[in-house]
Amino acid sequence: MSRSGGQRRGSGKGTRSRSKKSAGRGPGGYQSPRRATAPSTRSSQTVGKGKSRTRSDDLGGDHVEGRQAVRELLRAGRRKVEQVLVSDEVRDTAILAEIADLSEERRVPFRQLTRAKLDDLALTESHQGVIAAAESIRAVDLDEVLSAKQNEPFMVVVLDGVTDPGNLGAILRTAEIAGATAVVLPRHRAVRLTPAAVKAAAGAVEYLPIALVGGLPTALQRMSNEGLWVVGLDGSARDSIYELRVANEPLAIVFGAEGRGLSHLVGQRCDQLVSIPQNGRLESLNVSNAAAVTIYEVRRRREMEP
Amino acid sequence: MSRSGGQRRGSGKGTRSRSKKSAGRGPGGYQSPRRATAPSTRSSQTVGKGKSRTRSDDLGGDHVEGRQAVRELLRAGRRKVEQVLVSDEVRDTAILAEIADLSEERRVPFRQLTRAKLDDLALTESHQGVIAAAESIRAVDLDEVLSAKQNEPFMVVVLDGVTDPGNLGAILRTAEIAGATAVVLPRHRAVRLTPAAVKAAAGAVEYLPIALVGGLPTALQRMSNEGLWVVGLDGSARDSIYELRVANEPLAIVFGAEGRGLSHLVGQRCDQLVSIPQNGRLESLNVSNAAAVTIYEVRRRREMEP
Repeated sequence: MSRSGGQRRGSGKGTRSRSKKSAGRGPGGYQSPRRATAPSTRSSQTVGKGKSRTRSDDLGGDHVEGRQAVRELLRAGRRKVEQVLVSDEVRDTAILAEIADLSEERRVPFRQLTRAKLDDLALTESHQGVIAAAESIRAVDLDEVLSAKQNEPFMVVVLDGVTDPGNLGAILRTAEIAGATAVVLPRHRAVRLTPAAVKAAAGAVEYLPIALVGGLPTALQRMSNEGLWVVGLDGSARDSIYELRVANEPLAIVFGAEGRGLSHLVGQRCDQLVSIPQNGRLESLNVSNAAAVTIYEVRRRREMEP
Repeated sequence: MSRSGGQRRGSGKGTRSRSKKSAGRGPGGYQSPRRATAPSTRSSQTVGKGKSRTRSDDLGGDHVEGRQAVRELLRAGRRKVEQVLVSDEVRDTAILAEIADLSEERRVPFRQLTRAKLDDLALTESHQGVIAAAESIRAVDLDEVLSAKQNEPFMVVVLDGVTDPGNLGAILRTAEIAGATAVVLPRHRAVRLTPAAVKAAAGAVEYLPIALVGGLPTALQRMSNEGLWVVGLDGSARDSIYELRVANEPLAIVFGAEGRGLSHLVGQRCDQLVSIPQNGRLESLNVSNAAAVTIYEVRRRREMEP
């Protein structure tokens, strides 16, 4: 029943940017490639230039609930897992059996608790009988992300103020599955990896590098200067996603906040604005669905029209 | 600021199936086209054959939270709204101004409450300062849905046991925007239109007809017999969504439950099974994102390759 853990589908991809400063996998595979340098140097706000790691590179994500999220945490083996707690009342499913096997294999303390006790510890609406505690996730440097831009297909997903944890998590999940290179979040406005976001991401946070930047307009300008084609999704754009220029250039796609859309300055930094054609009466798609449609349209075009 | 309400974008579409028994709009536009016949005849379980309306045709949806959901409730004007409650602490946004205007126009009692009082009444995690009470939504008959099958483009979205209200709501929202004809839910297994589902649907429940059927396999067989091409999304399918036969036939697309996917019997009733290509390490997309990608791929193909 149990699979081979973190190395299940090969050990990495050319398009994925990981910390070059990383010591790699430590004994037991616990060394997170994101936890590269000192965790609390206090010279903050230099990301976007990208060098110094600070406490604010801590993305959260240390409290992991839900079967898929916990399974991928263990499969990936990229960050230290302190313990796995399961409810003694859940039915014995394949995924729980795999979680138990992986915990044993990785020597992670594994405890059964009553459902009531697990409910007390839960921070999301549905823990699905599994909660894990792990070290938190570190943001990667934008520099590291951009250094992989010659690798094709290169696609960075940029979120301009997405605040709903469910939407953030779903976008991370879809970005990972569609083969995105990394996600970029603004340091100050975006939600961090709350338990609800981590659960919705269903394990994507274990694989998909996430960069934090001080200001999105500056970061987008930099991406543009580095040769990325920067596209923003904007409901009022005349070009549709089917007119999106994807070609073989490295691409950044920017999605705006629920309701407000792209901020003015962010819109100005985009090389192209595109909209999703609509036939109904409602004004806009949920941001995670809009991101899914757009990201998959890019993927389709790159696959079909190389 | 305020728009013209329910008739904003014309009074309907050829592809939308509505109750022919409806008395239409009553005085003030309150008559719901879904509330066609007696609300509580007790001869249940005949849907799929589709004639008699019963209490179990009540989909819920009477408690409406969130700015977009309440605005569309008022714009559509298809069901009686008992009252609209707003927080006295919310900032005066365009959407709230429109809600106030529409309430006045439609003579719906409109009250300001303290934030604390509104929080007490709320049934979702974020009411966004607005809660409305309305009559509940009635399911339409599958017969009525299928009677519009000669109208192009005809696309029915069928959900096989989607239980998460956020996913259900997001799928309804995307289906409405992409121009789907109707949604079909199994009577016994699916979630109903809970406050969380209604909020996530962002108003789609006001426009998109929803049918309840006793058994999905039987309903799908019937759709097949009526000439619909029935497609199921299945992660293990060899055909991809890009090989989906959409042509100009009426189409039903079936999405399975989170985690479990399509049930065995439902899968057997599909004329074609398709999967979404994946490049990442995770196993599957969130069902609402998967539905968005698939529904939009159908829409794109129909638009581009008529």
